[in-house]
Amino acid sequence: MKVRLEKVKGTRDLLPEEMEKRRWVFERIREVFERYNFHEVLTPTFEYTTLFQLRSGEEVVEQLYAFDDKGKRNISLRPDMTSSVARLYVNSFQNAPKPVKWYYIANMFRYEEPQSGRYREFWQAGVELLGSGSVEADAEVIALFVESYLATGLKDFTVNVGDRVLLDEFARMLGVEDDVGLMRLIDKKDKLSREEFTAALRDFGLDDDGVEKVLSLIGIKGKPDDVLPKAEELFTGKKAEEEIRRLYDLTDLLEAYGVREKVLIDLGIARGFDYYTSIVFEAIAPNDLGIGSVGGGGRYDNLIEVFGGKPTPATGFAIGIERLIPILEWKGLIPEPKLRPEVYVIPIGKEQELRKAAIRVVSSFRRAGIKADHELTGRKLRKALDYAGRLGVPYVVLIGKRDLAEGKVTVRDMESGEQRSVELDKVVEAVGRMMKG
Amino acid sequence: MKVRLEKVKGTRDLLPEEMEKRRWVFERIREVFERYNFHEVLTPTFEYTTLFQLRSGEEVVEQLYAFDDKGKRNISLRPDMTSSVARLYVNSFQNAPKPVKWYYIANMFRYEEPQSGRYREFWQAGVELLGSGSVEADAEVIALFVESYLATGLKDFTVNVGDRVLLDEFARMLGVEDDVGLMRLIDKKDKLSREEFTAALRDFGLDDDGVEKVLSLIGIKGKPDDVLPKAEELFTGKKAEEEIRRLYDLTDLLEAYGVREKVLIDLGIARGFDYYTSIVFEAIAPNDLGIGSVGGGGRYDNLIEVFGGKPTPATGFAIGIERLIPILEWKGLIPEPKLRPEVYVIPIGKEQELRKAAIRVVSSFRRAGIKADHELTGRKLRKALDYAGRLGVPYVVLIGKRDLAEGKVTVRDMESGEQRSVELDKVVEAVGRMMKG
Repeated sequence: MKVRLEKVKGTRDLLPEEMEKRRWVFERIREVFERYNFHEVLTPTFEYTTLFQLRSGEEVVEQLYAFDDKGKRNISLRPDMTSSVARLYVNSFQNAPKPVKWYYIANMFRYEEPQSGRYREFWQAGVELLGSGSVEADAEVIALFVESYLATGLKDFTVNVGDRVLLDEFARMLGVEDDVGLMRLIDKKDKLSREEFTAALRDFGLDDDGVEKVLSLIGIKGKPDDVLPKAEELFTGKKAEEEIRRLYDLTDLLEAYGVREKVLIDLGIARGFDYYTSIVFEAIAPNDLGIGSVGGGGRYDNLIEVFGGKPTPATGFAIGIERLIPILEWKGLIPEPKLRPEVYVIPIGKEQELRKAAIRVVSSFRRAGIKADHELTGRKLRKALDYAGRLGVPYVVLIGKRDLAEGKVTVRDMESGEQRSVELDKVVEAVGRMMKG
Repeated sequence: MKVRLEKVKGTRDLLPEEMEKRRWVFERIREVFERYNFHEVLTPTFEYTTLFQLRSGEEVVEQLYAFDDKGKRNISLRPDMTSSVARLYVNSFQNAPKPVKWYYIANMFRYEEPQSGRYREFWQAGVELLGSGSVEADAEVIALFVESYLATGLKDFTVNVGDRVLLDEFARMLGVEDDVGLMRLIDKKDKLSREEFTAALRDFGLDDDGVEKVLSLIGIKGKPDDVLPKAEELFTGKKAEEEIRRLYDLTDLLEAYGVREKVLIDLGIARGFDYYTSIVFEAIAPNDLGIGSVGGGGRYDNLIEVFGGKPTPATGFAIGIERLIPILEWKGLIPEPKLRPEVYVIPIGKEQELRKAAIRVVSSFRRAGIKADHELTGRKLRKALDYAGRLGVPYVVLIGKRDLAEGKVTVRDMESGEQRSVELDKVVEAVGRMMKG
């Protein structure tokens, strides 16, 4: 049997340094989520495939890791968390006090071509706010979205807000039948040249005037005060008017949160999934890494009903961890992981008494909450010191036979080379003093 | 299309209270792992199926979630972490300084019959120590195993230590050909009646004397000092003698770690997987919940070579989170999760100025690191207060028009019903004082 020792294409091993950085990012984000009174949930890694088919856009369904389990159930690895959260809500939380505020930090799976910041298994940190259709709920979620990035130290980013009602209205004004197709096209505009984009627009049956209008629409991008008046000019009808009013209210509330300067209006945003119903948004952090949006979300007021629940408005977002971390690293915002132990204990010799003394010493450090290690391979002093050097350990405790007989050990400052004889049962305090200077 | 709104059999949703308890347990265990200088790694959720087939016992292979991905790769969800860690080691860490000390806290997947403490998706917290064959390494890992449970507050448990070399020697002494089969049987002895067990032993070709010997072997269970001399009597030959010496050394070193009183010798332990080569161990915490072992591990000195690496001794363990948590809960050892916010802010009325003031107030609490929430659904005061009551929020801040005009808000102690008018920009301090009493 030939063993495939590689990992599967599109997946990755996360090594200790990466894990420590990742955990730092998770903890920063988690802390903000919690302060906003969101609570963590975790659903199963796989669900019935139909659950994902019902909700997600075509593209996501095509990318599902779907298979039959041994009980002939057709199941899929989750491509995102929203479907599972909606299922959980419909199953058990329809009668809970509203709104329900949940967050998750979890891995997702999509079979797509690996590229920069894109893996077949990837992590998202996200929230869902279920049971409120108010613009306050939109503002709460967008403010949290902004603050989540700020919590990681990122400053150079914007949250771009679009609106599906306006896009729908727009498709209606233009008389385009395949409004979903048009939205998808608009969503991908940045990946096309101007010529390709206008050609594709004509395929939807648009004439010069129509193309011009779409170009005006996607030109509505900038500070809310600057561009919302332009939207008022472009749109007609009560529905569009009310939705633009909602965007004004939203940005006004975001001012109270103190995050308004991070928010731009961009009416050319649709966000891939088909289930968004109103305000949508995404975060863009300029970078040289070829990474686009680092997260996004929006309002989805129909999904719970589609899943068989009572009509329940909802909104949420997800932050793409594999997009965010490279940008944070590129900007030097994640503290360098400190993997080395503070202390390394070496018994000089193989006698059981020395080995036991080494264990007692290393245990006393650990009990004091100090990361410590000791020689575990039986190698000689010289090699053990080399190992400690390669690890970058600042202090080594040497346990020799003669010292031990006098109840003493030797502490070596690995940087200065200075050695000091200290009492065995005071070694933690002695190293503590040396650490402080 | 009929939507399956249930979760898949054998899987679970983890709700906020459970997640908070689980995180508490993870953090306690993680802290000990880190103090022992183990570093976190995370491998992909799925690997080539052949990777798992090569290593795991028959039972585990039968329980794999295996399927073809869209690129016709036969992949499986990981049934445990050791294979993946071994792959990672062979791929990239053969030349790293030894020993390599890794830990993981991650989910695994096995298609087996759901029962108490057993799910098809479950979590393990485990460590692997690669590159040392010394008894110090065994002691380090077993001491950490004991301390991990202690860190969760669990006191009533034992770590039972067996030995595969001795079991092998024993099968050889008995002249049993299917030694793996015999070990599996011995491993399952607690699930069989005495009669079933002896009958099964006879199926391996054992006569009365052989059966008697096996019963003596599995009777070697107790404090090391009491039972290791019995083992010396039962076994003959240099190999067994050396291995018993190793067990003496091990328990002696564990004394230096201060954990010896938690350790029993139990020569009837085999641990299911076929790849263990020497010392094996498992943790047993007496309970009324029908939960057996809450974790286990052992030495596996051949695995890295089987995976195409240079011969590399290794040892490790995994703690079964779904086994441990119910026992901790049953004993009341996990602190009650505190999900409620400390403060809930309600604007009395729908005016934008009130809503913005509410946001400013809630944001000032959050910025001070206090979990706070505010009315997001537009409901009336009465209902908003009901909601705050159901959540158990201790303080509500009411924002009324007249108050606001004077730069004031009202803080209400929800327990006493007492209300206090405070200045808008001093509300955080005011509530802070009320919290302290």
